[in-house]
Amino acid sequence: MTAPRHVIRIEDPDDPRIAAFRSIRERDLTGRENRFIAEGTVVLRMLAAAHARGGDFAAEKLLLLENRVAGLAEELAAFPPDVPVYVASASVLDAIAGFHLHRGVLALGHRQTVASPADLIDRLPASALVVMAAGISNHDNIGSIFRNAAAFGADAVIMDATSCDPLYRKALRVSVGGVLKVPYARSGSIEENLSLLLQRGFEVWALSPAGRAEVRTIAAAPRMALITGTEGSGLPSAILDRFNTARIAQAPGLDSLNAATATGIALYEIARAQGRL
Amino acid sequence: MTAPRHVIRIEDPDDPRIAAFRSIRERDLTGRENRFIAEGTVVLRMLAAAHARGGDFAAEKLLLLENRVAGLAEELAAFPPDVPVYVASASVLDAIAGFHLHRGVLALGHRQTVASPADLIDRLPASALVVMAAGISNHDNIGSIFRNAAAFGADAVIMDATSCDPLYRKALRVSVGGVLKVPYARSGSIEENLSLLLQRGFEVWALSPAGRAEVRTIAAAPRMALITGTEGSGLPSAILDRFNTARIAQAPGLDSLNAATATGIALYEIARAQGRL
Repeated sequence: MTAPRHVIRIEDPDDPRIAAFRSIRERDLTGRENRFIAEGTVVLRMLAAAHARGGDFAAEKLLLLENRVAGLAEELAAFPPDVPVYVASASVLDAIAGFHLHRGVLALGHRQTVASPADLIDRLPASALVVMAAGISNHDNIGSIFRNAAAFGADAVIMDATSCDPLYRKALRVSVGGVLKVPYARSGSIEENLSLLLQRGFEVWALSPAGRAEVRTIAAAPRMALITGTEGSGLPSAILDRFNTARIAQAPGLDSLNAATATGIALYEIARAQGRL
Repeated sequence: MTAPRHVIRIEDPDDPRIAAFRSIRERDLTGRENRFIAEGTVVLRMLAAAHARGGDFAAEKLLLLENRVAGLAEELAAFPPDVPVYVASASVLDAIAGFHLHRGVLALGHRQTVASPADLIDRLPASALVVMAAGISNHDNIGSIFRNAAAFGADAVIMDATSCDPLYRKALRVSVGGVLKVPYARSGSIEENLSLLLQRGFEVWALSPAGRAEVRTIAAAPRMALITGTEGSGLPSAILDRFNTARIAQAPGLDSLNAATATGIALYEIARAQGRL
């Protein structure tokens, strides 16, 4: 039995203590200084775990619909006592958020440490699996890359500077908290990040419908990186010409797979080849 | 060189000839007597192919943004001359549809033949791969099942009556036209449809995070069926207890994969085992 968590009741949508949760839908489109909004029970749990690890992420405060508190006793107990838990009625909560919050579970967190791709790659173990996102500006796609990376135990996600921030509310939600689990870096160009991987002994495979090898035939190497591009235009031909390319076998004459599914299949196959699963 | 397609210009959003395209977002929620709206170039191409095959689907009319016509010459030529092509300006088109139509490509089609699960299964070849959707009411998930079924060459999708109509606008769009490609039936209960498959010699595998066999170890059989349930609650335990169950190996301690990705991986593995890819 855990003791009931102390909560602070918010009556006024303009209360400064919960200002960070105000109009989150609109502000999602702006930079937020490494702060982010986590939504839903599963992501809340992932944030508590990340906070407890004392690594890249810390929780600042929680804001919950009042009738969710009792059911979340276990999750709330996972946060240290100095992380305040605010609660509000449905009408106050909706007035704060600026839209109807169906699930009524919000947390504010921040990213404490921001690694460069080089720093992150230097910290990886001798046997490693990296996903490289190349120019992915769609929040759903970035989120699903992290969800798949977490599911198949990838060690890191490396993004170029043009890929979108995975801490955007929707990307974090689609990742089901994977963004808080898999270490990542986002800066530099695709070429610069690829050079870093090659210098550190990674075998780089680019995923493409026109790939030369079928993904299930890829031979395992201790350090492997999978590059994935946008669903429409795919990876630049300069990359496809220079690196190993892998395709996923499909029925003839059809549009390619959804980007998330294709990345999931490729990661599953590579992680299996490396003996990770 | 194909001759330019004859088009009919619409100036009045209330023109009765394009009444079927009016307020499509709201009407999507209602029954539409096997009529459906296809959106976008790829789905338009799939509709033309389905119409030309003369099978389950026929195109009735097209409605395009005027500046899209020139670029779609090849797609338009694929429709017979008795399928009228209406064009409108952006403002008239948006007034018809009831929201801003970014892509400006719409078609109205209808389903001509509605097979029962028994009829559909009876028509399948000796070697067959079937996907069974069990209680899937989410349009995205139904759409992605069809996209994956098409990508990996499944012969049919069987849905119980509680699964949602794959001809819903969003489901059809997410399927990227897969709904027009892979034969399907939607009626009966999960149990009834499973009995039909068993009677016709199918080996049935239920996909579940708690599955007993890893999906890559499934032995091929000439006739195989994969059952997939909802992402949250999964398949009923009565099914999991009674049939072969398959899981997708994942890193420990994590939330399960996205339903679309999980189905995609399982179909890829089974289709490969059957020698289809």
